[in-house]
Amino acid sequence: MKVVKFGGSSLASGRQLEKVFKIVTADRERKVVVVSAPGKRNPEDIKVTDLLIECAESCLQNLDPQEKIAAVVERYASIVQELNLSDRVIEEIHDDLLTRISSDKSNPDRFLDLLKASGEDNNAKLVAAYFQSQGIEAHYVDPKEAGLIVSDEPGNAQALPESYERLYALNERSGILVFPGFFGYSVNGEVFTFSRSGSDITGSILANALKADLYENFTDVDAVYSVNPSIVRNPKEIKELTYREMRELSYAGFTVLHDEALVPAFRAGIPVNIKNTNNPSAKGTLIVNQRDNTNGPVIGIASDKGFCSIYVSKYLMNREIGFGRKLLGVLEDYGLSYEHTPSGIDDVSVILRENQLDEKTMDEVINRIKTELHADEVKVAHSLALIMVVGEGMRQNVGTMARASKALAKAKVNIEMINQGSSEVSMMFGVHEVDEKRAVQALYEEFFIPVTV
Amino acid sequence: MKVVKFGGSSLASGRQLEKVFKIVTADRERKVVVVSAPGKRNPEDIKVTDLLIECAESCLQNLDPQEKIAAVVERYASIVQELNLSDRVIEEIHDDLLTRISSDKSNPDRFLDLLKASGEDNNAKLVAAYFQSQGIEAHYVDPKEAGLIVSDEPGNAQALPESYERLYALNERSGILVFPGFFGYSVNGEVFTFSRSGSDITGSILANALKADLYENFTDVDAVYSVNPSIVRNPKEIKELTYREMRELSYAGFTVLHDEALVPAFRAGIPVNIKNTNNPSAKGTLIVNQRDNTNGPVIGIASDKGFCSIYVSKYLMNREIGFGRKLLGVLEDYGLSYEHTPSGIDDVSVILRENQLDEKTMDEVINRIKTELHADEVKVAHSLALIMVVGEGMRQNVGTMARASKALAKAKVNIEMINQGSSEVSMMFGVHEVDEKRAVQALYEEFFIPVTV
Repeated sequence: MKVVKFGGSSLASGRQLEKVFKIVTADRERKVVVVSAPGKRNPEDIKVTDLLIECAESCLQNLDPQEKIAAVVERYASIVQELNLSDRVIEEIHDDLLTRISSDKSNPDRFLDLLKASGEDNNAKLVAAYFQSQGIEAHYVDPKEAGLIVSDEPGNAQALPESYERLYALNERSGILVFPGFFGYSVNGEVFTFSRSGSDITGSILANALKADLYENFTDVDAVYSVNPSIVRNPKEIKELTYREMRELSYAGFTVLHDEALVPAFRAGIPVNIKNTNNPSAKGTLIVNQRDNTNGPVIGIASDKGFCSIYVSKYLMNREIGFGRKLLGVLEDYGLSYEHTPSGIDDVSVILRENQLDEKTMDEVINRIKTELHADEVKVAHSLALIMVVGEGMRQNVGTMARASKALAKAKVNIEMINQGSSEVSMMFGVHEVDEKRAVQALYEEFFIPVTV
Repeated sequence: MKVVKFGGSSLASGRQLEKVFKIVTADRERKVVVVSAPGKRNPEDIKVTDLLIECAESCLQNLDPQEKIAAVVERYASIVQELNLSDRVIEEIHDDLLTRISSDKSNPDRFLDLLKASGEDNNAKLVAAYFQSQGIEAHYVDPKEAGLIVSDEPGNAQALPESYERLYALNERSGILVFPGFFGYSVNGEVFTFSRSGSDITGSILANALKADLYENFTDVDAVYSVNPSIVRNPKEIKELTYREMRELSYAGFTVLHDEALVPAFRAGIPVNIKNTNNPSAKGTLIVNQRDNTNGPVIGIASDKGFCSIYVSKYLMNREIGFGRKLLGVLEDYGLSYEHTPSGIDDVSVILRENQLDEKTMDEVINRIKTELHADEVKVAHSLALIMVVGEGMRQNVGTMARASKALAKAKVNIEMINQGSSEVSMMFGVHEVDEKRAVQALYEEFFIPVTV
């Protein structure tokens, strides 16, 4: 049995829904269909989820939301019309929205979640109605009734353990089950959404709970690329990669799949297949637990900007038990998460995402490190980029670092930082942001372009 | 004005003391002479400090210490005889030892410190008597009377801040001042020694306190070598290196100078000159605050064995604020100091010296990391060596990492870990102990042997 998830662009129009219908019905194993809200039909379009957020904000500001509601309904209506579905589908969606906007607004975050979740919920109803109109047994599944119970954190809900056992019972139901992504219900019966792109999470939870053989994740690219196509033109597609590789790549800028979404599938060892709704015959990218290492040490190169480093030096720091712990404790007091802590003998640098700190916080942090930890020197470097070179089996490959650092030297990129040796599947380089593009291109050329004589 | 320190081998015999006398009197700036206890005259010899430790242990076990005392006195007597000094010098040393062994033994560590300190104290008296016998104004300086006040930690005393001000007054005294190394007095007037090789520390403290122009440290090698001579035959001598470089090198196996000893001189910006008593015309190695970078990026390569790594992985560790702090907190609970913490996205390794943990402690640590931090996996790798490649200006040198990693790859050394980017003057490689020698040789060849065509 397969759980199949379709993203917003795969559900943006009637035409797209026809493709979805063909894909689902082409394989009898595709039993559970998880749907996002309708996405963009063209680059200028607005996603239904964004329209719903505007709608919620109008309500919270006591403005008349009629225009916003009309915009949302219009999106569904155009699909219904394209597919010749009954007007009742639209009436129900309209009624649902009116019920939602008249709900309790005393907690704005919860009200926002209630509105946002309608995007997926109503789309699941629409998709089920469409499948039925084509003579296929299909049922909308209400997450509440099915037992997807989540924690009560608006915009960041987590599935509770009991959900998995309850959802397993869906296996008993007949027909195709159309399940709305992105949200669940708290123990008290209130709607809470996952973090953004949370439909991927719903699909992953269902794949785990129903013990699916495969989790197919349909989006709008043929495959995961080995490098960002905006940095390297026509990069190689990745046929197969492991969860670990995917996680390391998605950390630094690979946005095809929301990385948290992998957790439930990862824990259950269920393979994930990234496929293209617009080109379903392409094999896509398969994410697995283990893979045969046949394509050289490196499978992908990712990079991300916006990091800074706090350098701390203190003579004989190395002898001081507790220094590192205290340093990290100061960061924790400000809720700062850090990425890496490369260290010398008497110095350590903490690399963190720059957008976490305003100038005032930075000053306070530096000041506390100086006064409480008696550091000799504290200095900050801004505008760093981290580059991840990722691949299973890289560890055992003598010379991979030599190739990577030689490629960077040839491209005149100064390496500010190297972190290698904990993860077996990646090496990380820190460079100045201005060097990022050149560095990624040089590494891609080294590891992906065959040498022609 | 120069503070001059002589190590044990420079003071092991009358013949050696003659060299010391010549060196000191050859330069009128050499005013303060810090002396160690007599060291080994040949590889089979026993250092006076070790004889004194045996003596103290006999006393503490209520055994007759006469034989041990005789052995100590005999060492001084042979020097006195060689130099034709008065027998009174020996009588005083003998009396001093008898007084010390009859002291309070209720605190064995303090009693041990009292005995150990006599090695330097009596040698300073002997050296002063010898200088006087040659018609030179020279005075033994009692650290208590001179004001070298230290904390009351046996075997690990630290100079108290007030010492520096008091010792400055020594500048007013006439003649050559012979100061015993290795110990000071607590506020209560009790003897406490510095850590082993602590005469270097005494010299450094005096250089700082007296605002010396230079701290000359005489030992038995012509210079600090760029690499361990037992790994590479006839390595290059280092003419000049910075404090930071010295500290990084001494961390990983360079034992010419006790690294803590540098702190007081470092803080005062006083250059340190490592010289050879047996070849005083050699310029030796000068340790300075800053140096001109003229000899390529690397100045030295050091390595040390006996490290292990504790690898911890947990899915989405990267998102968990406080994980690193808690991990280091567990180590701190067992008094473990760590060296480095290379990290991936969802994993971190802690590198520490293996001799800190027995099997039971290791099991406890692993168990606590698993249960308290809910780690997915914890594993230990043993028998690692760390190699430091050190040099000022290395940071700005695009390609140094490429050269180093290529050299290691060529020598078929697998790099287990790289830590680069916090210290500006070093890069660190972790390798298996079996690969250490080959790795160091390969790096030395790359950075120190000119390519001949």
